[in-house]
Amino acid sequence: MGDKAKDHSKNATSRRSFLKQAGGAAAAVGLATSGLLSKATSADAAELPKKWDQTADVIVIGSGFAGLAAALEAKKAGANVVILEKMPVPGGNSIINGGLIAATGSPLQAKEGIKDSPELMYKDMLKAGLHMNHPELAMMVADQSLDALMWTLDYLNVDYKGRVTHLGGHSVPRSYLTDVRSGAGIVRQELKKVKEEGIPLQKRTYLEHLIVDGSNGVVGVEVLSGYAFPKAGSGKKTFIKANKAVIMANGGFSYDIPFRMIQDPRLDKTLDCTNHPGATAEGLVELLRIGATPVQPSWIQLGPWGCPQEKGMGIGYIFAISGCFPFGVMVDPKTGKRFVNELADRKVRADAIIKTGHWAVGVADQNGAKYVDGLDKMLARGTVKQFNTLDELAQAFKVDSAGLQEQVKRYNAFLAKGKDEEFGKPFRASSQPIAKPPFYGMYLWPKVHHTMGGVQINSKAQLLDLNGMVVPGIYAAGEVTGGVHGAVRLGSNATTDCLVFGRIAGANAAKEKSRG
Amino acid sequence: MGDKAKDHSKNATSRRSFLKQAGGAAAAVGLATSGLLSKATSADAAELPKKWDQTADVIVIGSGFAGLAAALEAKKAGANVVILEKMPVPGGNSIINGGLIAATGSPLQAKEGIKDSPELMYKDMLKAGLHMNHPELAMMVADQSLDALMWTLDYLNVDYKGRVTHLGGHSVPRSYLTDVRSGAGIVRQELKKVKEEGIPLQKRTYLEHLIVDGSNGVVGVEVLSGYAFPKAGSGKKTFIKANKAVIMANGGFSYDIPFRMIQDPRLDKTLDCTNHPGATAEGLVELLRIGATPVQPSWIQLGPWGCPQEKGMGIGYIFAISGCFPFGVMVDPKTGKRFVNELADRKVRADAIIKTGHWAVGVADQNGAKYVDGLDKMLARGTVKQFNTLDELAQAFKVDSAGLQEQVKRYNAFLAKGKDEEFGKPFRASSQPIAKPPFYGMYLWPKVHHTMGGVQINSKAQLLDLNGMVVPGIYAAGEVTGGVHGAVRLGSNATTDCLVFGRIAGANAAKEKSRG
Repeated sequence: MGDKAKDHSKNATSRRSFLKQAGGAAAAVGLATSGLLSKATSADAAELPKKWDQTADVIVIGSGFAGLAAALEAKKAGANVVILEKMPVPGGNSIINGGLIAATGSPLQAKEGIKDSPELMYKDMLKAGLHMNHPELAMMVADQSLDALMWTLDYLNVDYKGRVTHLGGHSVPRSYLTDVRSGAGIVRQELKKVKEEGIPLQKRTYLEHLIVDGSNGVVGVEVLSGYAFPKAGSGKKTFIKANKAVIMANGGFSYDIPFRMIQDPRLDKTLDCTNHPGATAEGLVELLRIGATPVQPSWIQLGPWGCPQEKGMGIGYIFAISGCFPFGVMVDPKTGKRFVNELADRKVRADAIIKTGHWAVGVADQNGAKYVDGLDKMLARGTVKQFNTLDELAQAFKVDSAGLQEQVKRYNAFLAKGKDEEFGKPFRASSQPIAKPPFYGMYLWPKVHHTMGGVQINSKAQLLDLNGMVVPGIYAAGEVTGGVHGAVRLGSNATTDCLVFGRIAGANAAKEKSRG
Repeated sequence: MGDKAKDHSKNATSRRSFLKQAGGAAAAVGLATSGLLSKATSADAAELPKKWDQTADVIVIGSGFAGLAAALEAKKAGANVVILEKMPVPGGNSIINGGLIAATGSPLQAKEGIKDSPELMYKDMLKAGLHMNHPELAMMVADQSLDALMWTLDYLNVDYKGRVTHLGGHSVPRSYLTDVRSGAGIVRQELKKVKEEGIPLQKRTYLEHLIVDGSNGVVGVEVLSGYAFPKAGSGKKTFIKANKAVIMANGGFSYDIPFRMIQDPRLDKTLDCTNHPGATAEGLVELLRIGATPVQPSWIQLGPWGCPQEKGMGIGYIFAISGCFPFGVMVDPKTGKRFVNELADRKVRADAIIKTGHWAVGVADQNGAKYVDGLDKMLARGTVKQFNTLDELAQAFKVDSAGLQEQVKRYNAFLAKGKDEEFGKPFRASSQPIAKPPFYGMYLWPKVHHTMGGVQINSKAQLLDLNGMVVPGIYAAGEVTGGVHGAVRLGSNATTDCLVFGRIAGANAAKEKSRG
């Protein structure tokens, strides 16, 4: 190194202060070394056990929509099945999801005269997904969406509301909503069938390792039985052999702060998460360890309808989705002005809120509020607040009151014209001016909601390795996979995805030749 | 399954036609199984050889900016080094890059009175990177940018132009440009030093496997010597032991159509690539196979300045960057109208062009063209064409002529006002109305240019595994790593990144305890 450069190195030393000073932010990603991730690496590869403690034809990891559907289909095709669930209760994240499922050509669509097709649903998925979807996977979900819905109706006997819902980004109303307004409406019926079919569901059973036996692929799992979430290493080491295959239906990683920050460092602990605490990355990590191909892991969806004053999914989101976004306005409190089309896709809205740098305020009047199921509960909790005038609302939420009142006036004028000249929000036939007291307000801040990325599968739900080859003895379905939704998932498509690919995985796993 | 659902399955069958019909698109991602990817998977793990054919303290994979810098620093620190390059010529993609390097507080900035700081460069990087950058890595690059530049000046004796260049997204002019206007200006000097230092550079040597020995981590490599790119399996299997460490400086995967389509299915073969054909994914795949953590692999940068009528990087991009974008307009031929700020970041512009669905047309007049180095060559090649009037240009490029002429008139009016009221392009002091013949035109269509994602490293350039732990015996630097640039890399920052982390990797690898 020349002399000049040596001299210069003194400057480099003095500049160290910058690195130190900014160390807080740097340390954030460093969390990755000490967070929820506590899984084995290549240096700690799982070995074939001398003796298997248990055997099944098909081992299903996870008991959400996908895992339960896989287990039922595998059983139906004649396989002996076991379901493993790490949490003390079954249902994964599905049991707390919003209970909506998208399908094309459904009985309710027919009843309401809505024309729809798999092609249209596929187009909607690709548009929202920024055309980053894996075409063959997105097509499969669109194509099989009606089958999946009919399976929940005819086989599971799920009860749905009597009308299809029109969610953002879907060209037509095509989403069924369970009567209980939650994924529990489907999961509980799946669990009932699982019980009827005599499929064992072993709770508190944590996947420690997928066991690979050379060219035989995945031949079983090493689990911790009696595991106490989230206690690393709790439970007893148990080896379970899969005569046919293992199905990974272990869900997404929205709740895994260190892992999600590797993919998107903005998503630190200041962002709440709508998922259950078990939505962590160790299953995905285990798949990657055995050579699965990562697909788009940095596309992580934020829900723009989160209320920062309640934990997790909460209930306030219903006010946002049913009342505020379609019939009210979302404003920046600093100005009282709107800043985005309240019915744009989730990514557009969430990014817009984050860009303001502070909580937004959602507003609706009595007309909007009448579409909000469970408003009383929100008011009782203080999630949503009620006021006699917009000015009172503005004072309480520290919104620029004059700005808000001008904004509402302007919005009402656009409504009268039938055209939102500011942000292009599509008005509805049932839209009315925001004018009728009482008025309702809620804070809004995005919450981490869904991980679009995951491992690569083909349309048979087979796991593909880094070489594009099928890994024998293993399938994957649902949120742990990547590619179906591309960059942005549409609301209610997660349920369809999980049921379609869960069923495919179960049916195909059962068809494998037994290695027993 | 209930009867209703069974009946329904007939419809499902009829809908198969949709899947078939759309099979072309589906097959595209299916390419993954038969493309350039030809590497081992977990089922084909590399084993410790009985005998090593060769030994070095430090093995460097790749001979671009990062690899050569790593080798020189490792040698300087006393290590015995060997560089392995799969291609018949050294230099990787660096030797054909644009020759720009970003640094803060440089002699030229001082001379021109430009105030700059690592903090400002860091902020620019995070803004362009949509704050998806790994903070500690971006900080390191900004902080060490001047050291890297001074190393090329004082140690390598690289010749640069006498002025710093102001590239899009940088707050101030901070990019040095080599005299030869290419990365070759740096790489050739690195190669000269490598020769002087007596470091062997083994060309036609293809990395087949990283060899892992349990908790010792990476202990060597299995390579094919005498490999004839891109012939899979050509060459002789050779085992090289690394007493201290292996440094992966093997570059990005822009040229690997199957692998890039897994991450972004839009990037099919219809998109050309600016990289050399060796920019494929097998090195990244090998890192993932041994348990490296994938970081943001779906963020792949397209250069909006590509001319679709020439192959690869070509020369037309200089017309776009130096003439058309700052001093002319880019229009949609269907309307003759502009559709984006010609100086927005690369992603914004590339996405805007793709959204039109067809090649854009770049236009500049004599005033703009005078900033274009090598225009004669472009005209001789037919990349850029020259006309006496805008109407003639419009006829030749099938542009709506009236639309173009109105657009230019409007643009000139904005210029007179000093404000681009259509797209907010920042005008320059040297900007002049587009009016002076001859006029010049070129087609524009994005080309795949840089892969921001890769494997996770820490600020010591150590490889991190899926558990966030350091993998012993291996470092990585340059385009194969992810996180430095986040979602969008700024122009000229690749060179800085490669030199900064290449040097860090080399110095740290040499400090490892010898396992010889």
